[in-house]
Amino acid sequence: MPGEFEIIARHFSRPARSALLGVGDDAALVAAPAGLALAVTTDMLLEGRHFARGADPAALGHKALAVNLSDLAAMGADPRWFTLALALPERDEAWLTAFARGLYALAGREGCELVGGDTTRGPLAIAITAIGTVPAGEALRRDAARPGDDLWLSGVTGEAALALAQRQGRVRLSAEACARCAARLDWPEARVALGRRLRALAHAAIDISDGLTADLGHVLERSGVGAEVEVAAIPRPAALAEVADERLALECLLAGGDDYELLFTAPPAQRDAVLAAGAAAGVPLACIGRIVADEGLRLRDAAGRPVTLARAGFDHFAA
Amino acid sequence: MPGEFEIIARHFSRPARSALLGVGDDAALVAAPAGLALAVTTDMLLEGRHFARGADPAALGHKALAVNLSDLAAMGADPRWFTLALALPERDEAWLTAFARGLYALAGREGCELVGGDTTRGPLAIAITAIGTVPAGEALRRDAARPGDDLWLSGVTGEAALALAQRQGRVRLSAEACARCAARLDWPEARVALGRRLRALAHAAIDISDGLTADLGHVLERSGVGAEVEVAAIPRPAALAEVADERLALECLLAGGDDYELLFTAPPAQRDAVLAAGAAAGVPLACIGRIVADEGLRLRDAAGRPVTLARAGFDHFAA
Repeated sequence: MPGEFEIIARHFSRPARSALLGVGDDAALVAAPAGLALAVTTDMLLEGRHFARGADPAALGHKALAVNLSDLAAMGADPRWFTLALALPERDEAWLTAFARGLYALAGREGCELVGGDTTRGPLAIAITAIGTVPAGEALRRDAARPGDDLWLSGVTGEAALALAQRQGRVRLSAEACARCAARLDWPEARVALGRRLRALAHAAIDISDGLTADLGHVLERSGVGAEVEVAAIPRPAALAEVADERLALECLLAGGDDYELLFTAPPAQRDAVLAAGAAAGVPLACIGRIVADEGLRLRDAAGRPVTLARAGFDHFAA
Repeated sequence: MPGEFEIIARHFSRPARSALLGVGDDAALVAAPAGLALAVTTDMLLEGRHFARGADPAALGHKALAVNLSDLAAMGADPRWFTLALALPERDEAWLTAFARGLYALAGREGCELVGGDTTRGPLAIAITAIGTVPAGEALRRDAARPGDDLWLSGVTGEAALALAQRQGRVRLSAEACARCAARLDWPEARVALGRRLRALAHAAIDISDGLTADLGHVLERSGVGAEVEVAAIPRPAALAEVADERLALECLLAGGDDYELLFTAPPAQRDAVLAAGAAAGVPLACIGRIVADEGLRLRDAAGRPVTLARAGFDHFAA
């Protein structure tokens, strides 16, 4: 019976492009690009935690890579190579074919090459490690926010959380909103082109995987600064208008997670350049607040009153 | 309740040494070393497949990194950095402390720095991606064996398989043999120092994870050559003398897997230099056969008769 080596040969071996040596040896070989830093990130998706049993394998192939590319985007790095560790409960040709299709489609589009992997039998788990390159001094770090910086957000947040709420029966969205939100949850787009253009402009950046306020909290903590956020300035996705419960709506918008938008800070003098970078990357940008010296995060509504949240963001081990 | 961020902060964050930016950002940053190739490999260990429930977490931390370092050793690469994706069924401080101890002890010894990771809740799974560096033209590839090459083996094979057979009740070893074999299975040593010294000497190399004959088969297939192996020339671990069933003994020796020894080929003119490299690395080496132009693997006993095996090696998806 054909086994793991044939799985790799059939589904995960394509001729090496940028790699010196691709899939099939003990390790892949790639040329270290002179004068650049390597950005390295890893993310694992598990059935039952990050996606439901029976999830579309093409979407899983896409998303498993996209969440890693999003981390590279948040560093301002250019995706270059990635490895895949895949645990599968059984060999399933149709599943593998669809998974590989979703994976390679995104990899090809972003110029990121699969160079190695490991396949084994077990509960469905997908771990990808992605490597990008970035001029060392231009990387967008979490610890680089400075008082006075504008706080920027790409695209909109909350749609992925709404899709999850719909699947859990907590909201009932229209068919159109449902489709749009499901696409955001299952086929997220990493803001790679935007991250690349922000290299010379932004100070700090992070991608929103755990929720806007939680991820903003990471930037504030690492930078030793605070932020004032105008909730009314945060773009609301159209689907949010269908949610009657304003607490749930706010939770999706501010703490939903799985959005993979970029949250970044830049000096006010760069405002026009930042907007131009967004336009060039085809991503709408909104200035949602500013960085201040006083630590802590303060959310305000349009009238200047404090906004409080029941839940700050997502934590896999939280109670 | 503290969660995944505190797990990372408490157990997996140490000050960056060689990294420009270590654990705690969207991605780690490391300087790409000029003029070298990067060797990239990934391996995943799953509970119930690669190790039993209740396995010593310190040994798991060690082994999860060791199997990746072994892949780098088989390329002749110097380990530099690694990432860790960890799925844990529940937060368990004692488990995490011991796991991190085993992981960091080996990482420190081999100069390989943990630069990033992902922690999530799920069935116990450990995926590590390791990055090494090697002069591009000196990497030991699987496809570089040439007819006339000597075939070399480091150390001894079969002890890890014997430990597994003991745990499965298929053999009864003495306490001493049992302890020695268990150490080989649970605390494997990657032949990093040897791999490094073989760079300028060897043609092809592979590490033995699936079994001697299976892994040799990968080299032969990729190189388009064959091999003649003298089974009597393969060093037998002392514990093998305790196995009455010669078929089982041969299976452990030749197809056992989990040995993490290096199997490599080198021109006969390099024989003395190869032995000196082994001595310098503190690893015994045995010449067990030679590479020939005729494809296929031929095993012979001391009298020149063919030796056949019921099972070639390990395959996670084989019947």
